[in-house]
Amino acid sequence: MAELTVARIAEICGGRVEGETDRILSGANTIENATPSDLSFAENRKAFEAAASSKAGCLLVPSAFEQSGEWSLIRVPSPRAAFMRALAALYPKHPLPPSIHATAIVAPSATVGPECFIGAYVTVGEGASIGPHCSVGAGCRIGDNVTIHEQTTLHPNVTVYEGVRIGKRAILHSGCVIGADGFGFTLAGDHYEKFPQVGTVEIGDDVEIGANCCIDRAALGVTKVGNGTKLDNLVHVAHNCLIGEHVVVAAQTGFSGSVTVGDYAAIGGQAGIGEKARIEAKAIVGGKSGVLTSQRIAAGEPVWGIPARPLRQHLKGLAHVARLSATHEEIRDLKKRIGALEPPEGRQS
Amino acid sequence: MAELTVARIAEICGGRVEGETDRILSGANTIENATPSDLSFAENRKAFEAAASSKAGCLLVPSAFEQSGEWSLIRVPSPRAAFMRALAALYPKHPLPPSIHATAIVAPSATVGPECFIGAYVTVGEGASIGPHCSVGAGCRIGDNVTIHEQTTLHPNVTVYEGVRIGKRAILHSGCVIGADGFGFTLAGDHYEKFPQVGTVEIGDDVEIGANCCIDRAALGVTKVGNGTKLDNLVHVAHNCLIGEHVVVAAQTGFSGSVTVGDYAAIGGQAGIGEKARIEAKAIVGGKSGVLTSQRIAAGEPVWGIPARPLRQHLKGLAHVARLSATHEEIRDLKKRIGALEPPEGRQS
Amino acid sequence: MAELTVARIAEICGGRVEGETDRILSGANTIENATPSDLSFAENRKAFEAAASSKAGCLLVPSAFEQSGEWSLIRVPSPRAAFMRALAALYPKHPLPPSIHATAIVAPSATVGPECFIGAYVTVGEGASIGPHCSVGAGCRIGDNVTIHEQTTLHPNVTVYEGVRIGKRAILHSGCVIGADGFGFTLAGDHYEKFPQVGTVEIGDDVEIGANCCIDRAALGVTKVGNGTKLDNLVHVAHNCLIGEHVVVAAQTGFSGSVTVGDYAAIGGQAGIGEKARIEAKAIVGGKSGVLTSQRIAAGEPVWGIPARPLRQHLKGLAHVARLSATHEEIRDLKKRIGALEPPEGRQS
Repeated sequence: MAELTVARIAEICGGRVEGETDRILSGANTIENATPSDLSFAENRKAFEAAASSKAGCLLVPSAFEQSGEWSLIRVPSPRAAFMRALAALYPKHPLPPSIHATAIVAPSATVGPECFIGAYVTVGEGASIGPHCSVGAGCRIGDNVTIHEQTTLHPNVTVYEGVRIGKRAILHSGCVIGADGFGFTLAGDHYEKFPQVGTVEIGDDVEIGANCCIDRAALGVTKVGNGTKLDNLVHVAHNCLIGEHVVVAAQTGFSGSVTVGDYAAIGGQAGIGEKARIEAKAIVGGKSGVLTSQRIAAGEPVWGIPARPLRQHLKGLAHVARLSATHEEIRDLKKRIGALEPPEGRQS
Repeated sequence: MAELTVARIAEICGGRVEGETDRILSGANTIENATPSDLSFAENRKAFEAAASSKAGCLLVPSAFEQSGEWSLIRVPSPRAAFMRALAALYPKHPLPPSIHATAIVAPSATVGPECFIGAYVTVGEGASIGPHCSVGAGCRIGDNVTIHEQTTLHPNVTVYEGVRIGKRAILHSGCVIGADGFGFTLAGDHYEKFPQVGTVEIGDDVEIGANCCIDRAALGVTKVGNGTKLDNLVHVAHNCLIGEHVVVAAQTGFSGSVTVGDYAAIGGQAGIGEKARIEAKAIVGGKSGVLTSQRIAAGEPVWGIPARPLRQHLKGLAHVARLSATHEEIRDLKKRIGALEPPEGRQS
Repeated sequence: MAELTVARIAEICGGRVEGETDRILSGANTIENATPSDLSFAENRKAFEAAASSKAGCLLVPSAFEQSGEWSLIRVPSPRAAFMRALAALYPKHPLPPSIHATAIVAPSATVGPECFIGAYVTVGEGASIGPHCSVGAGCRIGDNVTIHEQTTLHPNVTVYEGVRIGKRAILHSGCVIGADGFGFTLAGDHYEKFPQVGTVEIGDDVEIGANCCIDRAALGVTKVGNGTKLDNLVHVAHNCLIGEHVVVAAQTGFSGSVTVGDYAAIGGQAGIGEKARIEAKAIVGGKSGVLTSQRIAAGEPVWGIPARPLRQHLKGLAHVARLSATHEEIRDLKKRIGALEPPEGRQS
């Protein structure tokens, strides 16, 4: 953590201070939990209400904010965006010092660019190439002929199988496994035979991959994760998926083989996407949804449910089911009323 | 495994022997699978029936047990609890010998308490502190400024990111990742920007965390797992969750950001808990349930389904759906009967 | 990749060439993506249509195939099976050179068979036994008294807890954890007590286990995965499960404690199988299904849904729910018609 004056933070955020400009801030927190040495921010009505009792040392607020209190104020056009900038200053990253640890084993034919941090007990395979300014945490396994482009970070204990290509400024969290064999087996008489998985994986620039994710290599060709896409923890991407650019995927979601996902799609947690499904650009898939094999999900209305269908339709379905108890009573009632109208001999069983 | 006489086991369990007291037992198993050198136990009617044909060398039974057989008997108030105690004696843990392996890399400013086992190829970061009697398996990665309190066990290949705090007597299974960045991104024009994740994780005392679990650091503040809580394998805990004490969570369940879970709650496998949901103390969430964003789950009746609702209500809903086929026939029948009653010109389409 | 003539590939596949026999092929791809140096195959009508515009250098086709084009042809009885054989030739595995890396730490009482590859920074515990022709990737952790039989491959960073037994020709992908403690806790007053997990795990021959899978040891006895069974990524197998032979399990599926699965069963992704459930031989469980505690799933018709039930029944249920909107309108209409028939004083509310 750094120690910064309110004035310095205002400068960083391009804001206007009200109150003590030389107060020292050394951290940041939510408006409810902030202490006098913390910066916080208020952007919506709920936060404005919380401001009254907030112990924060300084608040980032919009120009229209009208309260005053113990805190100093910095007025900015977008408090949240300003807060994100201030966080980077209050919690500066200490980039790991460029060095290749004495215990890292880099194959003779591998290349490591300048200004890289290669941690203890890392292994880098033959023909692998690590671009400049990369950081590879302790215990990472980089297979033969892997390419990792500049400024990419692998946290400790990441495994990258041979031949995988990873873009610039990507972040791979611990435990993720990139390039394991796709799940391809053919029943041959009394046993399964493995379909050789001879393809590879390509991860784009600015991708972030959560802890313990698995991205399998293609059977043939390439499994792709496009530029700017973000995967939460424990996500499974099967062989031959083509995940577009700037897609966000929440935790524990799984993509079966050969799924395509368009740019800017957003997919909730624990969703399951069937083989060859097509999630189109900007489509939204709700958490726990089940997209069927080859189903096509269009942009526009979010989908939800198993099988996934437009949200309003799904909610209507839930509402209809919720009133089934009343429905069944109504039917009993109707039967009685009809029975009362029917002549005795005309009654049906 | 140890070899113990029936008499010795009776002593350990505080029970009364009937039959051979000097028979040697060297293991334990279920009543169906036990062999003559095994201890087993019978606590309910099903087990009493299985006792007749059990090959166990000795059975732990309640005082009211009336059968006799080849086995010796030890009468105890709670056979299952006694069995657990006997297991600890029959399968003694061989604590790893206190030692810091020559290949472990402990940063100069880190401290390791007395009587610790630090395995091969472990890395311990600057400023980290490991309390007495801890065990850190081979290949674990302990980040800078991590604190681990006494008697805690990390199985091999666990990763703990910087600044995380872990309590006493905790057990972390292999592959779990504690303190990776929370999943926080803001769409800024045509791409996502990362919300800096500057918080941390606190794991309480006596917590057990399953293999390949992921517990993310808070964006701001702390992600907490309270004392005595047990997580099964592959569980995901997102940033800023506050999991209470003595909570049990079955495998593959996921908690979205800022979920709170009260003490003694029990959550089934593959459940998905939406952002900011509040699971109250002692509440029970069924397997595969989907708790909605900000939904509040009270104690009392278990909840089940997507979205989660009280179990009886959910089961009633399922029953209503199951009889829809009959419902639709009833409606067809009613239409016919009404049609028969209506004058020809009055009939509706 | 190898470079092979069309003639050589025909020889390998036992097929008959038409066209250039000395064309050089150096890879393989799908019929849509193949380039002139690629082999591909066509087996169904869709592929036959794609053949017309395919740029592949050579196609494996059935004898009845009638088109001609730029590609050479090899006629074979089963194009897909022939393609799999050709893949193995075009992408030969370079078995890792038999060697024990200088940094591998093999306990004095452990044995490693001939022709094994033991990678960098591997640890092998006391009493462990690794059969001939095994490959153990960098950073794997082999616990005490583990047995691994011949020709088995562990990719990097696999963890095997003590006492686990693994068969011949098995493949374990990175990050999987075999033999962690089962999830067994008993509420004892105000806290949970751990039921000692003293059993083990047995993995059969020819098993493949995906990345980041977790297979827990039995509480008592053995958790088994039978010969020829294939698990996709992130699968959870709890204590005391008995998974049969030649079972296939898609990604992110979880088996609770003491589940049994019969031979040749097939289980979709993200399915959840409740405790003690019995999936019978050749049964099929659809993706995302929830099998209840102790539920029995028979072969014959696939099951789907939560709770799982025969597919046709489940689909019928979905169809009935889908028409509930119409149903509720029909009921409104019936009410009106009955109202019109009832004498004014006889009308019900």
